[in-house]
Amino acid sequence: MDFTTDETTREYQARLTEFMENHVYPAEAVHHEQLAAAPESWSAPPVLEGLKAEAREAGLWNLFLPDPRYGAGLSNLQYAPLAEITGRSPAIAPEALNCAAPDTGNMELLAEFGSEEQKDRWLKPLLEGEIRSAFCMTEPDVASSDAGNIATRIERDGDHYVINGRKWWSSGAMNPNCAIFIVMGQTDPDADRHQRQSMVLVPRDTPGVHVKRGMTVFGYTDSAHGGHAEIEFRDVRVPVANVVGGQGKGFAIAQARLGPGRIHHCMRLIGMAERALELLCRRAVDRVAFGKPLADQGVVQEWIAESRVRIEQARLLVLKTAWLMDTVGNRGAHTEIQAIKIATPLMAEWVVDKAIQAHGGAGISQDFPLAQLWVQARLLRFADGPDEVHRMSLARRELKPYRAR
Amino acid sequence: MDFTTDETTREYQARLTEFMENHVYPAEAVHHEQLAAAPESWSAPPVLEGLKAEAREAGLWNLFLPDPRYGAGLSNLQYAPLAEITGRSPAIAPEALNCAAPDTGNMELLAEFGSEEQKDRWLKPLLEGEIRSAFCMTEPDVASSDAGNIATRIERDGDHYVINGRKWWSSGAMNPNCAIFIVMGQTDPDADRHQRQSMVLVPRDTPGVHVKRGMTVFGYTDSAHGGHAEIEFRDVRVPVANVVGGQGKGFAIAQARLGPGRIHHCMRLIGMAERALELLCRRAVDRVAFGKPLADQGVVQEWIAESRVRIEQARLLVLKTAWLMDTVGNRGAHTEIQAIKIATPLMAEWVVDKAIQAHGGAGISQDFPLAQLWVQARLLRFADGPDEVHRMSLARRELKPYRAR
Amino acid sequence: MDFTTDETTREYQARLTEFMENHVYPAEAVHHEQLAAAPESWSAPPVLEGLKAEAREAGLWNLFLPDPRYGAGLSNLQYAPLAEITGRSPAIAPEALNCAAPDTGNMELLAEFGSEEQKDRWLKPLLEGEIRSAFCMTEPDVASSDAGNIATRIERDGDHYVINGRKWWSSGAMNPNCAIFIVMGQTDPDADRHQRQSMVLVPRDTPGVHVKRGMTVFGYTDSAHGGHAEIEFRDVRVPVANVVGGQGKGFAIAQARLGPGRIHHCMRLIGMAERALELLCRRAVDRVAFGKPLADQGVVQEWIAESRVRIEQARLLVLKTAWLMDTVGNRGAHTEIQAIKIATPLMAEWVVDKAIQAHGGAGISQDFPLAQLWVQARLLRFADGPDEVHRMSLARRELKPYRAR
Amino acid sequence: MDFTTDETTREYQARLTEFMENHVYPAEAVHHEQLAAAPESWSAPPVLEGLKAEAREAGLWNLFLPDPRYGAGLSNLQYAPLAEITGRSPAIAPEALNCAAPDTGNMELLAEFGSEEQKDRWLKPLLEGEIRSAFCMTEPDVASSDAGNIATRIERDGDHYVINGRKWWSSGAMNPNCAIFIVMGQTDPDADRHQRQSMVLVPRDTPGVHVKRGMTVFGYTDSAHGGHAEIEFRDVRVPVANVVGGQGKGFAIAQARLGPGRIHHCMRLIGMAERALELLCRRAVDRVAFGKPLADQGVVQEWIAESRVRIEQARLLVLKTAWLMDTVGNRGAHTEIQAIKIATPLMAEWVVDKAIQAHGGAGISQDFPLAQLWVQARLLRFADGPDEVHRMSLARRELKPYRAR
Repeated sequence: MDFTTDETTREYQARLTEFMENHVYPAEAVHHEQLAAAPESWSAPPVLEGLKAEAREAGLWNLFLPDPRYGAGLSNLQYAPLAEITGRSPAIAPEALNCAAPDTGNMELLAEFGSEEQKDRWLKPLLEGEIRSAFCMTEPDVASSDAGNIATRIERDGDHYVINGRKWWSSGAMNPNCAIFIVMGQTDPDADRHQRQSMVLVPRDTPGVHVKRGMTVFGYTDSAHGGHAEIEFRDVRVPVANVVGGQGKGFAIAQARLGPGRIHHCMRLIGMAERALELLCRRAVDRVAFGKPLADQGVVQEWIAESRVRIEQARLLVLKTAWLMDTVGNRGAHTEIQAIKIATPLMAEWVVDKAIQAHGGAGISQDFPLAQLWVQARLLRFADGPDEVHRMSLARRELKPYRAR
Repeated sequence: MDFTTDETTREYQARLTEFMENHVYPAEAVHHEQLAAAPESWSAPPVLEGLKAEAREAGLWNLFLPDPRYGAGLSNLQYAPLAEITGRSPAIAPEALNCAAPDTGNMELLAEFGSEEQKDRWLKPLLEGEIRSAFCMTEPDVASSDAGNIATRIERDGDHYVINGRKWWSSGAMNPNCAIFIVMGQTDPDADRHQRQSMVLVPRDTPGVHVKRGMTVFGYTDSAHGGHAEIEFRDVRVPVANVVGGQGKGFAIAQARLGPGRIHHCMRLIGMAERALELLCRRAVDRVAFGKPLADQGVVQEWIAESRVRIEQARLLVLKTAWLMDTVGNRGAHTEIQAIKIATPLMAEWVVDKAIQAHGGAGISQDFPLAQLWVQARLLRFADGPDEVHRMSLARRELKPYRAR
Repeated sequence: MDFTTDETTREYQARLTEFMENHVYPAEAVHHEQLAAAPESWSAPPVLEGLKAEAREAGLWNLFLPDPRYGAGLSNLQYAPLAEITGRSPAIAPEALNCAAPDTGNMELLAEFGSEEQKDRWLKPLLEGEIRSAFCMTEPDVASSDAGNIATRIERDGDHYVINGRKWWSSGAMNPNCAIFIVMGQTDPDADRHQRQSMVLVPRDTPGVHVKRGMTVFGYTDSAHGGHAEIEFRDVRVPVANVVGGQGKGFAIAQARLGPGRIHHCMRLIGMAERALELLCRRAVDRVAFGKPLADQGVVQEWIAESRVRIEQARLLVLKTAWLMDTVGNRGAHTEIQAIKIATPLMAEWVVDKAIQAHGGAGISQDFPLAQLWVQARLLRFADGPDEVHRMSLARRELKPYRAR
Repeated sequence: MDFTTDETTREYQARLTEFMENHVYPAEAVHHEQLAAAPESWSAPPVLEGLKAEAREAGLWNLFLPDPRYGAGLSNLQYAPLAEITGRSPAIAPEALNCAAPDTGNMELLAEFGSEEQKDRWLKPLLEGEIRSAFCMTEPDVASSDAGNIATRIERDGDHYVINGRKWWSSGAMNPNCAIFIVMGQTDPDADRHQRQSMVLVPRDTPGVHVKRGMTVFGYTDSAHGGHAEIEFRDVRVPVANVVGGQGKGFAIAQARLGPGRIHHCMRLIGMAERALELLCRRAVDRVAFGKPLADQGVVQEWIAESRVRIEQARLLVLKTAWLMDTVGNRGAHTEIQAIKIATPLMAEWVVDKAIQAHGGAGISQDFPLAQLWVQARLLRFADGPDEVHRMSLARRELKPYRAR
């Protein structure tokens, strides 16, 4: 066992940290202003384009993609500390590096399961950062954490599929530049539970696609990221060639996609928690109440120490999970992926909450990133499956050897 | 000891519940739409005016004011269960009954400490619901939970006071109809700590008053309530007669104002928690996941039971505090007011969090009131003094008899 | 609603407080020494007898019994604050007043359901404090929180019942002076679920009764209270007249017995928490670490404030529950009894834990009552039904109106 | 970074696991009976001697000592997973392998700071497991977590030191075979804060040494481990040569001793938590309540999953800390040692508490090791420094870079 970070990663960390300090942090205020000036545009504020160019030039592009044909060729373990750093400025850094969800998951999906034609048409511009994409899985009318509940119908009609259904929380889809939707639905309702669903590619401009509204997240629209759309699919027709990985493979692909997606979220959450702890410490030394700085008050010290203790533990579990994914594969790391999905958002939520409390009103306002960091942590307690479902599943695995007896 | 609700209160409860069912709950969707249609108006959506008229006609007006010359003449103990009911629809009901903060505290303040002229000019239209008011205390640059830190200067210059300073979180002040600001600042910087501050009335249209922007609260502008303004006072001149209760009385008046203000918040929080628990239960029986309704799943049952247990305890402490305020006065109930200020927001935050989790994405979106309920509970963990300050103060009182030995 | 304590209760409170100060607290050290000197006697230390005589003389005897023919004739609401006071010295005070479990529950049971002959033979000496009794319900081999699981067989054989089975956690039964066991078992295995069990009186000296060992509670034997026995019943024969309240009434009687039993525990837990908080405060002002008393350290202040806040809430819920039992009966107060059974042990456990932490090693040792207070609170998180069962049941009630729709 | 366990460690793990299964677990019941039969002997039950011989033969002896001249020569990182395994049976395994506290810390101390004569006389028989030792630091009258408070006087008088003072929680010292006490006290009260104390070796049979009583730990005497003694030192004279590492080195040696001591405790706590989780799972599949096994009930599943998540995180932090101690030294790992000292006992306490709850009465009784496991975890929340002190210190380090600005 060896906890040393490897040379490649350290070099990337240094380069990325420099990029954050020279480009990303200074852009935060600009990003904020541009966003406030055009709240309904649903596109990334203009400052992003420059940052993307800078990142690309700095060799910080598509770091998430382990396949060297498409991306940086880093392992999960190497990417983890980098994703963490981008999590420190989650509104800007991931997208600047073309490493933002849901595009990352969608690119992985296309790289792994897409046909050559699909790759040419959609993966290529995504890798270039020219278009964006959405993943349409969650539905308003059913508990979507149980994939078996998905009700959207995708029916074969000659050379086409005809799609009917309603999706929501399709993140990014409000962005007019979001050109392609990956839609999950039932093609084979009578097949085995895990063979019923398929994924099909639906270009945004296909007739029958109705992007209806953006869902708000607490009071945020997340417009810079293209929001979270409710979309209606009414008799939407796409060629049969648009199916990804074959009919009936929807569930398997979804599982394959979610593992890396979940760990990326967790990596960034570590960075969000670190950013919040940094803000907490700064506030603590600056702010005087009742005759002494917050930094000298026992309760605030307890928050800081406890934050450090929790962050360290979560980070190590994320790193070990990344290492497992690299060494035994995503399936072999299934339990650990669930474990970090349970532990990390709760940890980040706790740390950010304390940072908010030390900031008082400022902490929940637009003047600090804390409220938005908190919302992202909170969101991840149910996005990609609620804590309760992961706990149930993890417990079943833990109990298995005892039942067998 | 007797836990029976008295006849008067029961009668009001019945009347108010009917009003909620017939008028308030049905108005929630309309309110929401009107708000969405005019997000920058900073005024209450038009539907409110009709509700105010209905409430007045139903004898549900100014219930919070114990002085029968001005309001319903109810005791705190009688008002508590009614405020709780309004808390179930906090975006609409309190204002519909002219019982919304910060106007309630400002009306009490004027009723108790205002001159006859001040009452005529400002209290009267407030009691009629014709204008709204703001309380300008918190400042961006200091820990305002320690009133000694307040830095705004109010200098005597002949027959006038000249005000210079910056305030924020002046709730309601973005509303153009918010006509009067009660501003706290230092008049006597060299006096004893608790005699330094005064409160002066500043009409909104006084030269030098600059309402600069609305602070956001986890993404919400709270525009329906007039937002939370940052205000700059630059050489603002008001006549000496605008001081409330005499120069140097600022701290004493603030203390007097905050007691009822805090309990009103706590009363409404009980109602918010009840509303969230109701939504949680409804969701639990409606939503099926993994083969059975959430209502039959142990973890959700635990949330529901624990919510009930926590709500009941907090409500009883709020009621006892109200009774103490009625029987031994606000000062005599000081410790209990701190206790409910610590306990109730945390309780409500916990309950609403569970209701959100059971709703998944819907719970944090605009489709349910839950995210906004949560934000209000969270906000009250530091508004009117953070939990930590109340705990410190409460502990000192508890320790006093032991130190004396 | 009125939170004033009535005259009768206040007079008892004053008298009991005096008794605690003059007799009970001074006896704690003696009690401790006598216990240490004879750890295997399983009887109350000799000092108890004197205290019992004093209590009786002071009119502080059998306060728990609402029926004036047998006890003080106090309502539950009147008894609650008195039981709380006895909880401050739980090793001594309840027994000194003849108000200790399980005798209290057994006396209530005999008073309500016993035949005249049963009352004469067993209730009378119990009321006089001459003998002690045990309640044999929990079994080692089944989850006894589900009464339907109880497996002990009680078979009719002519004029006798023949009992076979194994019980444990029969509190008090190790005491040689514990003369009578109330045994619950199945008489009618084929009857309806709630008509299967009966309760029979089994004198300790009946052939076939084997008191096998005392269970330890963490490291305590609770020998002063007669321990917690494991008992084997092997072909134990008792006359048919020994059944209590009729064959098949076991479940109903158990339910009737458990309501008051649970609230008595909760009342005393409030007192235990108050004692712990008092010890915490004393320690905090006395102990200096890192240059200042614990009382001036923020984290300890937080413990103290939070303890006060939690105690107050739990006490009010216990008092309201007592009032409900007095006004609408034990069945009407069912939900509230569950609520206090969930809330109070957890609260007390939390408060005592903090007091222990402030005492360091002393806190878990024989030099302070804290470790033993903690163990009693912990024990009550599953004794008389684990929290989880109460939460499940309470949730079902809460959900009922929503399911009906 | 690489999470693979090295070959040496894996080989030891396999051998130790076999030893646990063949010798230790089967001995638990015997140990228990022997202990119950002679509760006042204060010595290890006879079964231990055989196990020690077996362990020695199996090459599982003095594994904790990194110096190959004395022990197995394992690094901290290699020893950690082995200490974890011994933690699964903490009453037996550590002592069977001669790896039990406080002897381990005392042996390390003598190996590092002892003179050749001291090593010959005391280290040798300790390494052989022939005698035992105690570490006398904590005092009843002061907050000993602040070493500056230590009040025992060690005064030079010619060629001797004269010791006067009172110690308690000297673990192991009730055992008649505990031959040597390492006593910390003030030799130079006027020196700098960290040069005031020295450590001297005091043979048990020195005149003036009064071993007064064993402290209880939640009712347990820990007699198998020699209890926790209160010791009075009255004019105890020892030769000057008995000082360890030089006069005035007490604080430095204590710091050096506590680092490894703390991590050993944490390693074993991981094993205790694993044992508790195993018992929880076994119980969950065996026990039926309300119609289904506990294993199928949501709340119990949540406990199991959450236990797994917490154990994994704590283990990784312990392992990383061990690695840091190996690579950058105990001082370089200071913050991490504090972090695991805060995190691990709380984690273990939580897991064991849940296992207890699933066992009901059995869980707190002598029939399962759970209550005793819990007590050890609880004890470690303040032994070797309370959580609060570690948090304060850790927070100061975290804040340092921000203050510098």
